[in-house]
Amino acid sequence: MFEQLCKTLDKDSMIKAKNRLDSLSKPLESLGWLEHVIIRLCGIYHTDSPDIMKKVMVIMCADNGVVEEGVSQVGQEVTSIVAENFTRNITAINHFTNYMKQDIHIVDIGMSSDSENLNIHNHKIMNGTCNMVKGPAMTKKQALDAINIGIDIVKEMKSKGYKLIGTGEMGIGNTTTSTAILHVFTGYDLDLITGKGAGLSGEGLEKKKNAIMKACQINLPDKNDPIDVLSKVGGLDIAGMCGLFIGGAIYGIPVVIDGFISSVAALVASRICPNCIEFMIQSHGSHEPGTKYVFEQLGMEPVLNMKMRLGEGTGASMIMGIIDLAFYTYYHMGTFKDANVEQYKKHE
Amino acid sequence: MFEQLCKTLDKDSMIKAKNRLDSLSKPLESLGWLEHVIIRLCGIYHTDSPDIMKKVMVIMCADNGVVEEGVSQVGQEVTSIVAENFTRNITAINHFTNYMKQDIHIVDIGMSSDSENLNIHNHKIMNGTCNMVKGPAMTKKQALDAINIGIDIVKEMKSKGYKLIGTGEMGIGNTTTSTAILHVFTGYDLDLITGKGAGLSGEGLEKKKNAIMKACQINLPDKNDPIDVLSKVGGLDIAGMCGLFIGGAIYGIPVVIDGFISSVAALVASRICPNCIEFMIQSHGSHEPGTKYVFEQLGMEPVLNMKMRLGEGTGASMIMGIIDLAFYTYYHMGTFKDANVEQYKKHE
Repeated sequence: MFEQLCKTLDKDSMIKAKNRLDSLSKPLESLGWLEHVIIRLCGIYHTDSPDIMKKVMVIMCADNGVVEEGVSQVGQEVTSIVAENFTRNITAINHFTNYMKQDIHIVDIGMSSDSENLNIHNHKIMNGTCNMVKGPAMTKKQALDAINIGIDIVKEMKSKGYKLIGTGEMGIGNTTTSTAILHVFTGYDLDLITGKGAGLSGEGLEKKKNAIMKACQINLPDKNDPIDVLSKVGGLDIAGMCGLFIGGAIYGIPVVIDGFISSVAALVASRICPNCIEFMIQSHGSHEPGTKYVFEQLGMEPVLNMKMRLGEGTGASMIMGIIDLAFYTYYHMGTFKDANVEQYKKHE
Repeated sequence: MFEQLCKTLDKDSMIKAKNRLDSLSKPLESLGWLEHVIIRLCGIYHTDSPDIMKKVMVIMCADNGVVEEGVSQVGQEVTSIVAENFTRNITAINHFTNYMKQDIHIVDIGMSSDSENLNIHNHKIMNGTCNMVKGPAMTKKQALDAINIGIDIVKEMKSKGYKLIGTGEMGIGNTTTSTAILHVFTGYDLDLITGKGAGLSGEGLEKKKNAIMKACQINLPDKNDPIDVLSKVGGLDIAGMCGLFIGGAIYGIPVVIDGFISSVAALVASRICPNCIEFMIQSHGSHEPGTKYVFEQLGMEPVLNMKMRLGEGTGASMIMGIIDLAFYTYYHMGTFKDANVEQYKKHE
């Protein structure tokens, strides 16, 4: 349904960027992924010299009814406390974004409690999803509404001049919902893909696997219908981030994947609208065991391998800093002519 | 011979750093490798609040006689041209270090041509090594002299107030020497570990493998004597970087590994003086196929996976920027108390 709205990458700008990179005084393609990401961003922006200075982390906050099954070490109230803390400049992502001069945009897309904090943008679909062990987490309409909110936020960020959007989330219980979605899409064994999230005990891990199993048995999500999967065993944070990825393709802005939950949202987006993969940028491989399988499905490889599992968009934020470094080098480095060196030749 | 000179890490400072990290409002250990590196640097500096602001990239430049075997796409003259270019602010590493406010220190430890450029520090052992296919690349004394130069440079950098040293190199032919060292130490098949370096043709790759094979046959390096291996089939850039790693342990300064050549130098250092591993910090996994085997030997895993193969210290420089971000977060992030959240519990 979104496919025909997607923008395309401009091959001509990509070729120009590649030629510029090959003219720089270094072995061909020796900056590896940095060159790939430069070329792709030039394609997305239809120019070989995009201005990518202004960046924003969009953090989707939501609660998950499944938390009542004991799948998390901490209670659902932590979601809104941390969301408030994002606006108090004390969390990890605040310091990542402060350090790298990125902005931050906090969205309540379904927290259980209501906030009057004007820095938490209220796009609440409902006060936390229902417990997926007892029925669908939300209706299909609610999932679609959350996706559309993500898409609209990309439009809004674009109108504010942002050139690169990072995805982040806060939602107690969301490794459970993410693992459930991955399980439905791929059929991978829960023992293989279920992790301890923010720090579960062994007993907690069993509860988590049981909850996912029961949720799948009771809801029978149809793996060929991504909205069905998302609504039955997903979460509003995932749906909102899924909308960000689709919005990236619709409005022609690169959107950066963060860790496990964000990568599952990217996977859902790619199942709804395969074109949007071209607008996604990978960052880190989270410590969650499901991560490698999600990236396999996306046909991507994480470029940071720091065993982080904090969420909040910390990996996405870090890679946006590295993309800045890549463009700084692309714009300033000397060519072979400047360097008095003969250009390297290409061998296949 | 260096072992008894090595400093040790202060466990007390490491425990304090760990306690501070655990008090920050995030799931325990959820910053992954960033937490490990913070704790280790606190151990190295014997304080839980080190000042790591001042950083320098030390780039060892040297030529390799084996280049006459056709193991490189470009000629030996490129080493000194690029070394000059480091001082002209036009190379990739210049822009990495400019962007991240790191200094750069260029060392001629054995280039074939002589430079009068005062920004290229002259510590030349010889005008390029001998062709290892015809005999030892250098004498054991020359290898040891180069190691001692590396150690002395760490002392000098420490006296200038640098807190973190990155390693880089420029030396046409040095993936050949690095691969030869790895081959001798591990016995791994050359087909497995030999790569195309800066861009060899298939024919060039065969020449490279043949040269390594011949060099090993003619010199019979003793894998249990790392200085023997280094002098017979190594290079002066590798020896100098090996000295940097050993110097890190002697003077108590963390030294960052760059890509393939640098990691081989770290491996040689670890064989000479196992203690120095604690003072090494990994960065990226280069695209060179031998890289993963070197890191296996070192018992480390690269944390950046960007398929870079540029050398010059670009990966080390990048990770020094990320270490800055890690410490910025460590120093500024709020605690659980600040955050109104109950501290996460540890489960094994």
